[in-house]
Amino acid sequence: MRDVAIIGTAVTSFGELWETSLRSLWAEAALAALTDAGVDSVDLITIGCMSSGLFTGQEHLASLLTDELGMAGVPAARVESACASGGLAVRVGFAEIAAGLAETVLVTGVEKMTDVDGAAATYALGTAADSETEGFHGVTFPGLYAMLARIHMQRYGTTREQLAQVAVKNHANGLLNRHAQYHLNVTVESVLASTLVADPLRLLDCSPVTDGAAAIVLTTVERARELAAGRPVVVIKGSGLATDSISLANRRELAELRAVRLAGERAYTMAGRSPDDIHVAEVHDCFTIAEIMATEALGFFEPGSGGPAVEKGLTSLEGRIPVNPSGGLKSKGHPVGATGVAQMVEITKQLRGEAGQRQIEGAKIGLAQNMGGSGGSSVVHIMEVV
Amino acid sequence: MRDVAIIGTAVTSFGELWETSLRSLWAEAALAALTDAGVDSVDLITIGCMSSGLFTGQEHLASLLTDELGMAGVPAARVESACASGGLAVRVGFAEIAAGLAETVLVTGVEKMTDVDGAAATYALGTAADSETEGFHGVTFPGLYAMLARIHMQRYGTTREQLAQVAVKNHANGLLNRHAQYHLNVTVESVLASTLVADPLRLLDCSPVTDGAAAIVLTTVERARELAAGRPVVVIKGSGLATDSISLANRRELAELRAVRLAGERAYTMAGRSPDDIHVAEVHDCFTIAEIMATEALGFFEPGSGGPAVEKGLTSLEGRIPVNPSGGLKSKGHPVGATGVAQMVEITKQLRGEAGQRQIEGAKIGLAQNMGGSGGSSVVHIMEVV
Repeated sequence: MRDVAIIGTAVTSFGELWETSLRSLWAEAALAALTDAGVDSVDLITIGCMSSGLFTGQEHLASLLTDELGMAGVPAARVESACASGGLAVRVGFAEIAAGLAETVLVTGVEKMTDVDGAAATYALGTAADSETEGFHGVTFPGLYAMLARIHMQRYGTTREQLAQVAVKNHANGLLNRHAQYHLNVTVESVLASTLVADPLRLLDCSPVTDGAAAIVLTTVERARELAAGRPVVVIKGSGLATDSISLANRRELAELRAVRLAGERAYTMAGRSPDDIHVAEVHDCFTIAEIMATEALGFFEPGSGGPAVEKGLTSLEGRIPVNPSGGLKSKGHPVGATGVAQMVEITKQLRGEAGQRQIEGAKIGLAQNMGGSGGSSVVHIMEVV
Repeated sequence: MRDVAIIGTAVTSFGELWETSLRSLWAEAALAALTDAGVDSVDLITIGCMSSGLFTGQEHLASLLTDELGMAGVPAARVESACASGGLAVRVGFAEIAAGLAETVLVTGVEKMTDVDGAAATYALGTAADSETEGFHGVTFPGLYAMLARIHMQRYGTTREQLAQVAVKNHANGLLNRHAQYHLNVTVESVLASTLVADPLRLLDCSPVTDGAAAIVLTTVERARELAAGRPVVVIKGSGLATDSISLANRRELAELRAVRLAGERAYTMAGRSPDDIHVAEVHDCFTIAEIMATEALGFFEPGSGGPAVEKGLTSLEGRIPVNPSGGLKSKGHPVGATGVAQMVEITKQLRGEAGQRQIEGAKIGLAQNMGGSGGSSVVHIMEVV
């Protein structure tokens, strides 16, 4: 199996971008990543997108977007795993190079979510849950994560204030990221005073509906060294995928994100690393409780210790294990298909020492964790400077 | 790169299956393929599905279906390339084993198309075309393929009767396939007398709306030999992907399916084979014109010779290169996400000598060609008995 390196990265601005389209957003990210990589041709394009069908009335993105880039003919693959679609696009590109089927792959993620109204967007996102046991009964994602928050609070004593601290930290980080959707000073008090969405989750516990795209370019380590031009070479050392029951009702355990734990274990094993080795992580904070549970499932903290950890500042930029320096989904925004790729962009920037004001000093090993639905699927990648 | 073998196959009955659901159909095919393979665990599940979002209000199939099979936890990936989604699922599973990332992969395809009414199904299928330059203007797939038929007839003299011969042949083959949606005696006269859908295409030129699922199990050649139990070992020797402009308006050439030609060339190169080596082929006959154009793009016949070839019987069960012995999409049915996997099932059965009344004697090398939209993407696989 060949090693795979990341040689180019790009994200568009994230936000409510009514003046642009899915194809234009995507092409902006794709072209910028190719430019950053210094290549003008690829053997494969992968596209993570959750539901362009429901959000924009357009499937078959492999054909649409390859042509938009002026690359009609080039092999392309669109993949979907709800909000983990971007991470899955990374995995598929990684496997093609690892197998020797491709030398260079453009990995992308995109979601255009604001071409429909809020109710239609909520319906589209709801298709990531089990339609029969969850969706048909009116449960949407704030409700599902509220149930996870309730059980975590009951089991471990996680507090309402600890949830709020996740939002405070991630919005503080997002102030340092010009691509972020929100540049807001958020305090524990403002989170607790924000509109109740699904008890105990409030508006400022939730990631937003977002338009955006992200892209990275993968190639062999040999080619990456040739193209590095003095920049550090970042290699994907571990890649883990896992699923869990889609519906909460079928889960063995609700206070743990099992798919995240399994995907993390698989990635750590492949990389020959442990949670203690990780210098910086991007995790899937679609809701504040999700970040706390993800940091536990990834082994950064013991089960039940994720809440106290954020309260103590262990996950802040200066903490023991900085989590979501980009601002996370919470502040940066959450264009669902793009998120997993955008996480890889942030970790690559951190490992290259190109993260500007939010740079984690000495970061050489990083992790990105992407998640679908209420934890029904997850993808974890571990990157290192070689 | 490791070689990859096919050790199990299954298809459900294809048809308007109102009494069953996407998840039940899928599980039926998945379990039957695992049983045929003689394995009860896999490292990865891939799922080809075009638009479960629009057809059934359910995305995130990786999580939903893995759990349905009692395998929550196992890595899974859903892929989409319109009607080539099934072929893409094969490719993604192939790459994972080739890379050494997985030992055994369950590759599946599924579409449940009759849970919505005909207008909604037509809309969902229409999202495989360019929404801006085609869909918004009211063009649907019979219209797009009618335009391809018109130019092929004008350029090469392909006749209305030659189109009908494709339907006659494939319905004759479908009479020998108990899983086929239609068991009909079709004649040139009945095709020409059927309802005009989009001039020159008539009802009996079109594949139907279908519910169905298909599955195959992939593993290493070494493991396949261990599990063969006297059956021939079928290996995937070539795998090719390609795209073309999604919209007809952007194509360089309308009388050729360029994505099919490119995917075929890539598969032939990987396999070290040429069109003359192929003993049996399943091609994407979503409309009768599509089969004629695919057999040309794959090099079985010169451009413009595909019509005369079917008229002369060169593609019938006893012909020089039997095409669509299963009955093809035309007679067997076209559950869009399942089709590419079902093609692999048929070729594997042919190469194992297990195709019953439609067995091609001495078939040792076969090809499957799957296509998305009006030819905006294509996937070609070449299989051989080793």
